[in-house]
Amino acid sequence: VLLGDMALVWSDELLHTSGVEPADLARARPVFDEMRTEVTAGQYLDVLTVVTGDLSTARASKVARYKSAKYTVERPLLFGGALAGAPAALLRAYAGYGLPLGEAFQLRDDVLGVFGDPAQTGKPAGDDLREGKRTYLVAAAHAALGAAERAELVARLGDPGLDDAGVERLRTLIRDSGALARTEEHITALTATALAELDAAELDAEARAVLLELADAATRRAV
Amino acid sequence: VLLGDMALVWSDELLHTSGVEPADLARARPVFDEMRTEVTAGQYLDVLTVVTGDLSTARASKVARYKSAKYTVERPLLFGGALAGAPAALLRAYAGYGLPLGEAFQLRDDVLGVFGDPAQTGKPAGDDLREGKRTYLVAAAHAALGAAERAELVARLGDPGLDDAGVERLRTLIRDSGALARTEEHITALTATALAELDAAELDAEARAVLLELADAATRRAV
Repeated sequence: VLLGDMALVWSDELLHTSGVEPADLARARPVFDEMRTEVTAGQYLDVLTVVTGDLSTARASKVARYKSAKYTVERPLLFGGALAGAPAALLRAYAGYGLPLGEAFQLRDDVLGVFGDPAQTGKPAGDDLREGKRTYLVAAAHAALGAAERAELVARLGDPGLDDAGVERLRTLIRDSGALARTEEHITALTATALAELDAAELDAEARAVLLELADAATRRAV
Repeated sequence: VLLGDMALVWSDELLHTSGVEPADLARARPVFDEMRTEVTAGQYLDVLTVVTGDLSTARASKVARYKSAKYTVERPLLFGGALAGAPAALLRAYAGYGLPLGEAFQLRDDVLGVFGDPAQTGKPAGDDLREGKRTYLVAAAHAALGAAERAELVARLGDPGLDDAGVERLRTLIRDSGALARTEEHITALTATALAELDAAELDAEARAVLLELADAATRRAV
């Protein structure tokens, strides 16, 4: 806890000793503050969702947006834009591109957390399932499964003693329910929305190329 | 934990939306950052000291300085001074006054935590003893007691089930060891050091009167 507090304090200190002019910092500061409030609220929402057992895709998407989507893509772009004094139209385009892309990034993370190769992701296989994370992927399976299989999903999810066979059984339930395919389609749709915003934005060629590359890296990765 | 993070973020936000000019804020910012790092490190030092069982007065004083003395008096004065563009000599006087006074404030807190009237302090009697706080008061008792009574002090300190008779027994041990008197003398000496710095400082009459009043309020209180 104290190390987390220290890291939070030091991130501020880094920002304020970065050499950026105080007037520029003051312009970007509200974005930074809002981002930190959002991610903290998102983390709380995540914990609350595990406790209340809400397994809807709507809730999973909301958690993903606050806990992850905003601070991974949208807010960093808006922060950079504010520092550089970007026009309002460009900031709107960043938000339109960043939020769905951040959500797609999180969905890719959720898929890798269940189906990824531990040798590539660096995370033990099945840990998300043992922790009982209420992801969009899991919520989609919950919505699609019949009563018996749904009860099995709920019973196994969040069991810290889940063995390899249990993890494999949950993978099968999730895949066969159609939730994996539905999540992949959702990632594709969110990414398409982000890219359409990019198409419509007035950007120079280099910025456009970097943001296209970012969309690809965020959603097509295996690590 | 998350509420603490949020409060930390909001304290920043309050500071940056206070209406103070960015250039003034930038001057005061390092004091604010250092204060937050110090108090976090002091809190860690406090936790560590309970775990390692270090019962020296030197360690108790160090914890008090970092965890409490700096952020209660010294840093707030230096922060205000930096905001207002105070000259270096005045900032040195603030530090010379603030650090010992902050330490005296904490020692008064420690005394009230053991001997205070719960009706006035608002804290249950003996809670500091049940929590096993390694204060200067307790460290001074530990240093002064003979082997048998010292063992009794260590055995009872930090016992969450300590009853009223146990609290009273610890009070007697601490008082009879001379530790209460030694702590009161230390409070008096620290306060005298703070006031001597104030005497030597170039201050206007109103500032001097307020700081004298603060020294009195911090060290002679019963609440």
